Amino acid sequence: MALINEHFLKLPGSYLFSEIAKRVKTYKEAHPEAQVISLGIGDVTQALAPAVIEAMHKAVEEMSDSKTMRGYAPDFGYSFLIDAIIENDFKSRGIHLDPDEVFVSDGAKSDTGNIGDILSPENIVAVTDPVYPVYLDTNAMAGRAGYFKDGQWNNIVYLPCTSTNNFIPEIITKSVDVVYLCYPNNPTGTTLTKEQLKKWVDYALEKKVLLMFDAAYEAFITEDEVPHSIYEIEGAKQVAIEFRSFSKTAGFTGVRCGYTVVPKELTALDKAGREHTLNLLWRRRQSTKFNGTAYIVQRAAEATYSPEGKKQIRETINYYMQNAKMIKEALNSAGFETYGGVNAPYIWIKTPEGVSSWDFFDYLLNNHQVVCTPGVGFGKSGEGFVRMTAFGKREDTIEALRRIKDGRN
Amino acid sequence: MALINEHFLKLPGSYLFSEIAKRVKTYKEAHPEAQVISLGIGDVTQALAPAVIEAMHKAVEEMSDSKTMRGYAPDFGYSFLIDAIIENDFKSRGIHLDPDEVFVSDGAKSDTGNIGDILSPENIVAVTDPVYPVYLDTNAMAGRAGYFKDGQWNNIVYLPCTSTNNFIPEIITKSVDVVYLCYPNNPTGTTLTKEQLKKWVDYALEKKVLLMFDAAYEAFITEDEVPHSIYEIEGAKQVAIEFRSFSKTAGFTGVRCGYTVVPKELTALDKAGREHTLNLLWRRRQSTKFNGTAYIVQRAAEATYSPEGKKQIRETINYYMQNAKMIKEALNSAGFETYGGVNAPYIWIKTPEGVSSWDFFDYLLNNHQVVCTPGVGFGKSGEGFVRMTAFGKREDTIEALRRIKDGRN
Repeated sequence: MALINEHFLKLPGSYLFSEIAKRVKTYKEAHPEAQVISLGIGDVTQALAPAVIEAMHKAVEEMSDSKTMRGYAPDFGYSFLIDAIIENDFKSRGIHLDPDEVFVSDGAKSDTGNIGDILSPENIVAVTDPVYPVYLDTNAMAGRAGYFKDGQWNNIVYLPCTSTNNFIPEIITKSVDVVYLCYPNNPTGTTLTKEQLKKWVDYALEKKVLLMFDAAYEAFITEDEVPHSIYEIEGAKQVAIEFRSFSKTAGFTGVRCGYTVVPKELTALDKAGREHTLNLLWRRRQSTKFNGTAYIVQRAAEATYSPEGKKQIRETINYYMQNAKMIKEALNSAGFETYGGVNAPYIWIKTPEGVSSWDFFDYLLNNHQVVCTPGVGFGKSGEGFVRMTAFGKREDTIEALRRIKDGRN
Repeated sequence: MALINEHFLKLPGSYLFSEIAKRVKTYKEAHPEAQVISLGIGDVTQALAPAVIEAMHKAVEEMSDSKTMRGYAPDFGYSFLIDAIIENDFKSRGIHLDPDEVFVSDGAKSDTGNIGDILSPENIVAVTDPVYPVYLDTNAMAGRAGYFKDGQWNNIVYLPCTSTNNFIPEIITKSVDVVYLCYPNNPTGTTLTKEQLKKWVDYALEKKVLLMFDAAYEAFITEDEVPHSIYEIEGAKQVAIEFRSFSKTAGFTGVRCGYTVVPKELTALDKAGREHTLNLLWRRRQSTKFNGTAYIVQRAAEATYSPEGKKQIRETINYYMQNAKMIKEALNSAGFETYGGVNAPYIWIKTPEGVSSWDFFDYLLNNHQVVCTPGVGFGKSGEGFVRMTAFGKREDTIEALRRIKDGRN
């Protein structure tokens, strides 16, 4: 008689974005004439860069001839892409990586979820609060989170990030084994400076803590003191795995490509205290449970590093960041307190005094037909905030802001 | 201090195909002039169907315009593909499936590996022997396999498939919870008839055993009595998950698309004996740890079901099956005992009396510069066999067979 993984039963109701979709659907059914604008889910709206389109057409064409078609890709990615990643994303910032430290995949969501496969269910996990739900739910499925009660998991250590601490998580005094850090942050759009991140690396080095550094939004950084990679900090290779994504950088949410860096000097322990190279464990995980990223997709990713590709994706990032600036300015001038939006495509907005995240979500939907994401969906410390994204079309963003500023539809 | 998943340490040395690659590399370095032909790994060599190429170009073009570009795909697949799958692969065989019973993914290797996420580590797992290594390694990583000793895992129940039982696994008398069945079989190329598969479904219904039915090679079936889907058997929806792949069916090894069917009436138990719908658990797993299959890839898969697409992929399958026929005939006439190759692209060859799988592998490599896959790499009962695949180019296949038949290079 087959038994289920009972940790799944502990997961709370529905995933945040399903609940949003449900409320929006209900609203639209009741108001079929309404022009609902979504600044909620972080999905891109702009076309792929022409250089990427060209590379994909070329790769498709190669697949049409048995002389040039490609079968199974290398499990960890083609050299042409890995070399471009190292050259452009790391070497240019003074970071040396070997090709076998970079693992190309179908996206950072899969990788941040699957990485838990190589870790013991006994590790104590810490996350910033609010947080990207995938870190929590995947650890819960693996039995690391304990039980969910009053909006929190009893085995998870939460690091509150609120306006009180300027969204800078405080170094942990409790004993933990793994810490997830996402910077630039989803959902708050805030960042850590090099100095602030160095404290975490030093802490991890001292306590032998593993850092899961999610840098999916690094392309949106505009300020110099904000690090693009955790490996800009000395010693980070001994303590950190870094996740990267082309989803937001190059509009690949529907193309699916990301990569994960697992440095060879990064180790973790078995119970007997012996050190093991995580690079080899992840290598084994990926070669066993993953069959490589599509050739066409890898050529598309490679094209984001060509001179034209870089220029084109930069233009789109600037477009989104102009949206971010507009959202921030409009909401500030309408009297809202806002955070983020400078080095990230997310704006974190304080709800009016005494109004909950979901109530403000409903208010914006019912009164302005604007969809945001309730902050509490990202954790207890997100209560009293909502997230807006800069990924909308310009005209939609302008119209949404007009409705909110004018206080009417 | 982060702890690793110690089950990884129990995994034996290198993955089968890595070891093969290593030996071939060593041989080529020592004999740079050698024309090595691989009939080893099951990778395709023929171009994608023109209908698929056309669909991909069209989808790429859509991604170039913000009006038609697609962001995040639905986590479980676009309706256009799910509907085509149900219509062509199931309805045409009298099987009814609801759209929410089909989960599109990046391939059957990922799915057969990841499916374990929803199951307890305490389940006792049975596999046919020889077997596709992914079933074993992924269960080992999850702690279900125990320890590896003398070529076997002590917690796995092995069902020997040899010439003695005509490669038909015998119904298990021990108590097990999960059984992996791959038919048409990789690596032996053998099949179960409807009657033979019905015994397994009836057994699973009686004992409440979960069947993992891997039908990745169903497109190669030529004989009427061989079922294409386990759901052709009455009651199978209550006991079986079915895995499908476009990799071999349509040459998608480098495109990455497959799907998994988890019927809504399929349940498993918690420890208190309560039944849970596996469809909901898998839904939760995929929405949390997977971000959908690329739009372009799903359009490519959809095109395999168009009238032209069907005709074109059938031509390629026939090409491979003609290779299979040639391999089988040539080896039979050279005095070898062979199995499979009629409803599957794999030919399972008995090595000469007293010659081990790896010795015969080395013999073929050293004397004929032909690469096969040693049967023992798929399990103890594979000792004394090697696998050849029909996925080579025609001229390579002919040349490899000439070398073997002539007994010289």
